[in-house]
Amino acid sequence: MMFAAGAIPVVPDMEGIDSRGIFGVNTLQSGLDLFKYVEKRKPEKAVVIGGGYIGLEMAENLLKRGMEVSLIERSSEVMGTLDEDMGRLVSRALEKAGVRLYRNESLEGFNAKDGNVTEVITDNRLISADLVIMGLGVRPNTALLENTGIKTGETGAVSVTDTMKTNIDNIWAGGDCAESFHIVSKKPVNIALGTIANKHGRVAGANIAGKYDVFPGVVGTAVSKICDIEVARTGLQEKEIEQIGKQFIADKIESSTRAGYYPETGPITVKILAEKETGKLLGGQIVGKEGAAKRIDILATALHAGMDLDEVANLDLSYAPPYSPLWDPVLIAARITAKKL
Amino acid sequence: MMFAAGAIPVVPDMEGIDSRGIFGVNTLQSGLDLFKYVEKRKPEKAVVIGGGYIGLEMAENLLKRGMEVSLIERSSEVMGTLDEDMGRLVSRALEKAGVRLYRNESLEGFNAKDGNVTEVITDNRLISADLVIMGLGVRPNTALLENTGIKTGETGAVSVTDTMKTNIDNIWAGGDCAESFHIVSKKPVNIALGTIANKHGRVAGANIAGKYDVFPGVVGTAVSKICDIEVARTGLQEKEIEQIGKQFIADKIESSTRAGYYPETGPITVKILAEKETGKLLGGQIVGKEGAAKRIDILATALHAGMDLDEVANLDLSYAPPYSPLWDPVLIAARITAKKL
Repeated sequence: MMFAAGAIPVVPDMEGIDSRGIFGVNTLQSGLDLFKYVEKRKPEKAVVIGGGYIGLEMAENLLKRGMEVSLIERSSEVMGTLDEDMGRLVSRALEKAGVRLYRNESLEGFNAKDGNVTEVITDNRLISADLVIMGLGVRPNTALLENTGIKTGETGAVSVTDTMKTNIDNIWAGGDCAESFHIVSKKPVNIALGTIANKHGRVAGANIAGKYDVFPGVVGTAVSKICDIEVARTGLQEKEIEQIGKQFIADKIESSTRAGYYPETGPITVKILAEKETGKLLGGQIVGKEGAAKRIDILATALHAGMDLDEVANLDLSYAPPYSPLWDPVLIAARITAKKL
Repeated sequence: MMFAAGAIPVVPDMEGIDSRGIFGVNTLQSGLDLFKYVEKRKPEKAVVIGGGYIGLEMAENLLKRGMEVSLIERSSEVMGTLDEDMGRLVSRALEKAGVRLYRNESLEGFNAKDGNVTEVITDNRLISADLVIMGLGVRPNTALLENTGIKTGETGAVSVTDTMKTNIDNIWAGGDCAESFHIVSKKPVNIALGTIANKHGRVAGANIAGKYDVFPGVVGTAVSKICDIEVARTGLQEKEIEQIGKQFIADKIESSTRAGYYPETGPITVKILAEKETGKLLGGQIVGKEGAAKRIDILATALHAGMDLDEVANLDLSYAPPYSPLWDPVLIAARITAKKL
């Protein structure tokens, strides 16, 4: 048997949460429902709760539809999968695009009239709203496992071997409800992303069918596009490194996405984190204009290989003016960070 | 002392080679000379000799200036740093862009009138021309080394250690005139690219200044943009693998640069080459539309790390619809090629 129940959105139990006009965006149907509501009611004031991938992508698209868009984020910067200094670049880009950003602010509930949402209540203010998007993330959907004996791990997701088997014979698990081994932290993680779910499914399927396949794990790579800003991360961020008790060094550089003189070149900021003792790469983050983000795959590959900063700085990467400065920003970042060793 | 004499363009000793209107493009000055000639004489019929990076980039830009552009390539496809099947994609793109492409055809000389070039002579035809661009590549500029005792290698370039030292004490060399160690073939190569020259200079400079630094080598990465086609390669191509006597497998896949439904998604072809016995990655080639080429850095990094196809196929690469299909084309190519093991 394969347990693949996915994830369910975090929905806080709050006054007014069931009002009309409040949407999660986690299934095809919820997207269609939202689309219909927007077409029919023509909302003018949208509030997005949560500054993660879904929240930011929704904020962008609601702006494009001409709405006034506010976004509430309880941390000091949006995009909590980045370190604060990198998240700040995204916060600024959002504000520049026209989003009213309320940081360090928590959702407390909703006011409604005749069942329709009218206001979002935070610990600091009331915000008029005729559309609310809940983007508070997801948690593994493991409710069905109660009393089955199938074990979940510290992350709350199903604990699996590298063959995607649970602790019970002949029961496999995969996707957003299951853990993955993190190659950098060497700990189980629960990352709800399609790339990982898809790989889980492949491996579990092969093993269920009597073949043998293993899932070697993840390095925590993710990428997003918000307005004209590209955002990417891989490996461990500062707080994750602190959690595993390692000493680290980190630095960041500003460069350009293409040769400086090339048309459409734009800024790119690359941050690199490495183990203080060994110089081993621990993670990387990128925020920049068009062409910036896909570079994260260089660092993801280097993490899989266990490279140190010197090895990264010496990579023979591609260069031509339409693609990169002579030294790719990733190489410069590795070299600059290595100076802190 | 540092020997950094660069490379000099290959100029065949042929009748008419000194005629007015025939240009190499290898220095800032030669570019300026060409620019002046084009502004003043307003040539209408350009012939480019050689289908490498310089030839193709020139062909594109002459087309943009409204000239009728012919290109002569002595091999069966342009872009000889790619395998023929991948080069064919570039040949087709060039023809589609409007270049008259004469493949399997060799330059034999030039006709001139009053000192001005009028025709290019091939082994097959005469082509009218009032502008000719020589793009036959470069060779290391080592003429000054005669009788110095400084050794050149099989490639014709200066033989150096990993500290960029020549065989003579206190004499270093670097840049287009020097060899590099190829991490995949384990042999010295001479690759005239700015990225490599720049790294050579850094390492040689540090050592000359009394520090210690080494240049670990190259994997043969290169990228170019021709019209709306992006072209990239890394590692060894088929003929290079044959030269070192290895058995290999290779396959290629067609995918898209972004999620299929995303605006501006375009085709991408990825070819992967690997050692037959071990599945170890030996090289990769990419031809595709906007967004395709920079992916070559994933394979370059994997080559540095000595990964096999299974390791490449399991990389945790970034995915979001604006950047990639759920499975990055590089991952799909590695998986498909592995089926031939």
